[in-house]
Amino acid sequence: MNRKEFLQRSLAGAAVVAAATAPVELLASCAPKKGKPELRLSFQEGTAPGKNLNEKFDYMEKLGIVGFEPGGRNLANRVTEIQNALKGRNIKLSAICAGFGGFILAEDPAVKATFDSTMRDIIAAAGELGSTGVIMVPAFNGQKPCKPHTRETREYLCEQMHELGEYALKHNTTVILEPLNRGECHYLRLVSDGAAIARDSKSAGVKVMGDFWHMKEETNDYAALLSAGEYLQHVHVASRGRRSMPGEDGEKDNYIDGFRALKEMNYPYYVSFECGCQGDRNVVLPAAVELLREQWKKA
Amino acid sequence: MNRKEFLQRSLAGAAVVAAATAPVELLASCAPKKGKPELRLSFQEGTAPGKNLNEKFDYMEKLGIVGFEPGGRNLANRVTEIQNALKGRNIKLSAICAGFGGFILAEDPAVKATFDSTMRDIIAAAGELGSTGVIMVPAFNGQKPCKPHTRETREYLCEQMHELGEYALKHNTTVILEPLNRGECHYLRLVSDGAAIARDSKSAGVKVMGDFWHMKEETNDYAALLSAGEYLQHVHVASRGRRSMPGEDGEKDNYIDGFRALKEMNYPYYVSFECGCQGDRNVVLPAAVELLREQWKKA
Repeated sequence: MNRKEFLQRSLAGAAVVAAATAPVELLASCAPKKGKPELRLSFQEGTAPGKNLNEKFDYMEKLGIVGFEPGGRNLANRVTEIQNALKGRNIKLSAICAGFGGFILAEDPAVKATFDSTMRDIIAAAGELGSTGVIMVPAFNGQKPCKPHTRETREYLCEQMHELGEYALKHNTTVILEPLNRGECHYLRLVSDGAAIARDSKSAGVKVMGDFWHMKEETNDYAALLSAGEYLQHVHVASRGRRSMPGEDGEKDNYIDGFRALKEMNYPYYVSFECGCQGDRNVVLPAAVELLREQWKKA
Repeated sequence: MNRKEFLQRSLAGAAVVAAATAPVELLASCAPKKGKPELRLSFQEGTAPGKNLNEKFDYMEKLGIVGFEPGGRNLANRVTEIQNALKGRNIKLSAICAGFGGFILAEDPAVKATFDSTMRDIIAAAGELGSTGVIMVPAFNGQKPCKPHTRETREYLCEQMHELGEYALKHNTTVILEPLNRGECHYLRLVSDGAAIARDSKSAGVKVMGDFWHMKEETNDYAALLSAGEYLQHVHVASRGRRSMPGEDGEKDNYIDGFRALKEMNYPYYVSFECGCQGDRNVVLPAAVELLREQWKKA
């Protein structure tokens, strides 16, 4: 390492430290202090019944749901709407679910440029809303042409994630890599792999999440979430047979091992519903919330 | 502690270990019944000083080393030699370290055929020797042309591993996937990934291992080894800065989190030295053994 590289790295490091002091406040507001770990449930916009945000939030508050995970599409134009709907409520923004155009591993520079600009717009809006981070998948299987799955591409991804993470920190939020099952994204399938990429991206703004549906790829829920450690910023939950409401797939819907990891880590963020619904939403949704709370107690 | 005190302690410890160690037969019997988990140390052929196997085994027995991990090259012609050298000793074969030609993910059918035939010869010899399994890497970075890192290649690998695993079972042994750091093998870097491939290969003869040197890829030693669970068949150990004798890299050489996972899993196989040596082998090797035993106790 020559002097120039050293200084660049040092300055980058200093910037991280400087930037990190600001977001701590925000993240801390969503990330309560150490203590008895709590199950903080969150819904996506389509989860609760209701004609508009206010009806949905009324419903959520009755169930004790404390997080809201909107999609990222058009988020910049919805900041005021969402802020107003959240006013005076015991609900905060959890993560933002994707919504950008293009993808980060695109071979086509125009597709990559679309990703860069749309993702940054969402990050900025996410920051305004106090979100814990913006969820992203490096490349769905159908997104082609995609950079090949090589060591060089991993290095490229880490460099790109570093830039994105630093940008997110400036906006008091993060970017969250989501591993998916191999049917949807072969590139990133395991929570531990996402955590390693987050670590190697060398930005406190790069995080990872676990999704109990996609985690059928894992051999061990507990180990998978534990491997994410300090990088774990969000969790998705669904039934484990059909990606429906937790409980709708019966005994398959066991989250206890994963919850045990979250409790041991004193995980301070959200467990957010991302799932369909087979039965009557007004029956299976409260039942799902109850099931998760029971399993959390057992974990 | 001087060297004399150290050796006295080591030998005393070794006697305890030797007395407590049940005879190890392969697979079913190689995996001792549930009980107090023990640290079963193994050496590769180059680890112990000595001009021949007998001298090496004498040295190993004095240190309480109960496993021997030879290379797979020319193994079929060495079965009698190794069997004779092991007779009457408290040392069993642990894993066999590779030694085949070609590689399983080769694009070139001739290279794949070389892998298939040489690997099967080693598996058969490993079975005769009562080995716990034959270690293999799917493709080192330098092995080209290699099938691309795609979902289809993963399916192909699982099919090929299934066949290999079934062949190994017929020979009373296994095949053991070894994840390496990305500098050596980008294809398979994480223990959890190897475990998922072992699971999806759908053969009880397909296993995975962890190597504390390569596990610098992991975010969490404990979670990584725990994720391997029932698939974990072997462990390699080395110092964590220069891949030398454990302890030669000072505070970096902390294996306690990983050992904790092995103890909790009641891991019944071996922890085998695969490393160089910076200092005087007759000093640093016994010191390394002592260090590992101390850390095992602390774990």
